[in-house]
Amino acid sequence: MNYLTNNCADLLHEIRIKSPLIHNITNYVTVNDCANAILAIGASPIMADDVGEVEEVVSISSALVINIGTLNQRTVDSMIRAGKKANKLHIPVVLDPVGAGASTLRNETTQKILSEIKIDVIRGNLSEISFIAGLSVSTKGVDTSKADEKNDAEAIAKSVANKYSCVVGITGEVDVISDGIRIVKITNGHKLLSKVTGTGCMTSALVGSFCGITKDYYTATVTGIVVMGIAGELSFVKTREMGTGSFHIGIIDALSNMNSTYFVERVKIDETKY
Amino acid sequence: MNYLTNNCADLLHEIRIKSPLIHNITNYVTVNDCANAILAIGASPIMADDVGEVEEVVSISSALVINIGTLNQRTVDSMIRAGKKANKLHIPVVLDPVGAGASTLRNETTQKILSEIKIDVIRGNLSEISFIAGLSVSTKGVDTSKADEKNDAEAIAKSVANKYSCVVGITGEVDVISDGIRIVKITNGHKLLSKVTGTGCMTSALVGSFCGITKDYYTATVTGIVVMGIAGELSFVKTREMGTGSFHIGIIDALSNMNSTYFVERVKIDETKY
Amino acid sequence: MNYLTNNCADLLHEIRIKSPLIHNITNYVTVNDCANAILAIGASPIMADDVGEVEEVVSISSALVINIGTLNQRTVDSMIRAGKKANKLHIPVVLDPVGAGASTLRNETTQKILSEIKIDVIRGNLSEISFIAGLSVSTKGVDTSKADEKNDAEAIAKSVANKYSCVVGITGEVDVISDGIRIVKITNGHKLLSKVTGTGCMTSALVGSFCGITKDYYTATVTGIVVMGIAGELSFVKTREMGTGSFHIGIIDALSNMNSTYFVERVKIDETKY
Repeated sequence: MNYLTNNCADLLHEIRIKSPLIHNITNYVTVNDCANAILAIGASPIMADDVGEVEEVVSISSALVINIGTLNQRTVDSMIRAGKKANKLHIPVVLDPVGAGASTLRNETTQKILSEIKIDVIRGNLSEISFIAGLSVSTKGVDTSKADEKNDAEAIAKSVANKYSCVVGITGEVDVISDGIRIVKITNGHKLLSKVTGTGCMTSALVGSFCGITKDYYTATVTGIVVMGIAGELSFVKTREMGTGSFHIGIIDALSNMNSTYFVERVKIDETKY
Repeated sequence: MNYLTNNCADLLHEIRIKSPLIHNITNYVTVNDCANAILAIGASPIMADDVGEVEEVVSISSALVINIGTLNQRTVDSMIRAGKKANKLHIPVVLDPVGAGASTLRNETTQKILSEIKIDVIRGNLSEISFIAGLSVSTKGVDTSKADEKNDAEAIAKSVANKYSCVVGITGEVDVISDGIRIVKITNGHKLLSKVTGTGCMTSALVGSFCGITKDYYTATVTGIVVMGIAGELSFVKTREMGTGSFHIGIIDALSNMNSTYFVERVKIDETKY
Repeated sequence: MNYLTNNCADLLHEIRIKSPLIHNITNYVTVNDCANAILAIGASPIMADDVGEVEEVVSISSALVINIGTLNQRTVDSMIRAGKKANKLHIPVVLDPVGAGASTLRNETTQKILSEIKIDVIRGNLSEISFIAGLSVSTKGVDTSKADEKNDAEAIAKSVANKYSCVVGITGEVDVISDGIRIVKITNGHKLLSKVTGTGCMTSALVGSFCGITKDYYTATVTGIVVMGIAGELSFVKTREMGTGSFHIGIIDALSNMNSTYFVERVKIDETKY
């Protein structure tokens, strides 16, 4: 068991003791799953997006997760305001740039957030992170497009991490995480995860949850992404050919039963130091 | 196996290959189920309702589904703008007039949408479609009222289809679909479908999904409605007396396992040509 | 079987016959669960929050449930307007002050609602009701804080009930309900209920459902709270160590199977008259 695996397993243990409050400004499609994923892993969710309360709410929270899945002008203002307050208080901020590359509004909002807020972790798919890297992308809605699948995830993760001095997590068949120096590849997961809406959003919510208990955002990001991958695997073991409805519920089940033993048994990480 | 059944079965096969992007402007009650139903049947959902991005989002989509379940002024503007853009680009538009007849806002919005946008398919319950037909209705919230159950669904479907040159799908114990000339009655389904919120919305989302891969909106509508009926039957076979929570999950399971074999085995359609 | 138990069991029987329409102005996190809980217990939900329709919608409803879980200026206006209309028509109003004590906006909104609307039932956790009682609280987001757990729930429930001439239901490990004179303690429930988001919101939705068929709001509140507790117990019997995803679905299953037999067998109430 290597050093990184060990640290991730420790976070899994610790989160159920500390139960950090995680403030989410997110979309209305997957918000229920995000809240339940946060609860299942041992943290405590609060969803609040009115501009009149986000600064206060983030102030009592241990991390802020900004997800632009169903952004609108009202909530974009709230995201900016909450993010600035989080920065001032040194509360970590996770950005999930859902659909970046798919519309001018999403592109401009992503850039506005990245220019006005210090983001600690960006978690997205390859199309979304490619857009942030300044590549021309061919996003298909909120999923990675076939064309973008050819992009070099490792180079992109590292480049974006350096550009914004943050941790970048690109999730897909192989997940790639970088802090600009280190790169880790994760091969946990199951292909059915792409057939349930919100598994990306839940991953970001989990990353945010772990950022709420450590200043080591690299390890927190790895933990969140591996945990979702393992939850997918465990859910498939239980639900097999039942269908994506049962698989969806099985993900939350697996998160709620997740512990360091499952983690150490199943984690598939490959870390490269440069 | 008749011609219509055969065409429906073909669409079921084709949708998993083409995986069309379906743009939904919908309500926050059932949006997660709609996204998961669209994924389960093989299409790809995008939910976007800000007036600043709906035109761009609909432009990259294969169909638009407008659902007024929790309408508000902000989203009504988005519906109109997205619908007009879809019309310009010959992208099909499905309308789900949730609760039409239940409030002046819903009535006026339904009429505004029908007068400003060319709608290709209207999918609703008998109270909602009766309202569109100009009958005085006694809608009980978002469900068909007892009083309206006496209305002649076939005549109403045909009349509304002719009035708006569209396909009309009225769902209930017996579903009735008309393009103004043909009428088909479907007796698939299960009574528990009315005990889970969003089965109507999901049906509209499925109809939209099939409209994304064919210009034959009549067949697309029949396919979407039959598929939901069969999913209800299959879910009941699996979940029996477990309760409506399990039945709900079983619907998504059944949709994700749906194929032309299940369809042909179970479809119960009765088509009349006039 | 005492008088109260008997009356609760009667309501359970009656609600499936009358199927009252329940108007909810609620949050987008748990709205789907609230709608499904209302359907499962035999009532009919309508979610509508645009200021342009809430008065009409509440007018055709049998009860109004106001939940401030993800409040914003647009919906706060709708809450006030719907509540005033409900008061005028003698339609019962249930308030769920989610997160009261956690932000100035939630505090002020709670107070605004309580000063402008006659509320018939307030259902919240001990932190939220302590805030309404005028105590200084240390709410941790939307859950009861450790510090507030020491507060005297019985005294607080009674005091708030008297202050606002309403029924107060404080839910927690032991639930406490008071109408200002009577106090009842309920020990139904399961600790996993706190690990699924929305069990509090669903409880309020159930209380609202029962208020839709009786003017005895005290009994309606007891019924709603006991029913959710029993649903948690029954779900745990079925799902055991499966996890919180299955437990969540099991709650809806149990609600849809709930009847007076289950109720009478399992109810654990302890009523004190003063």
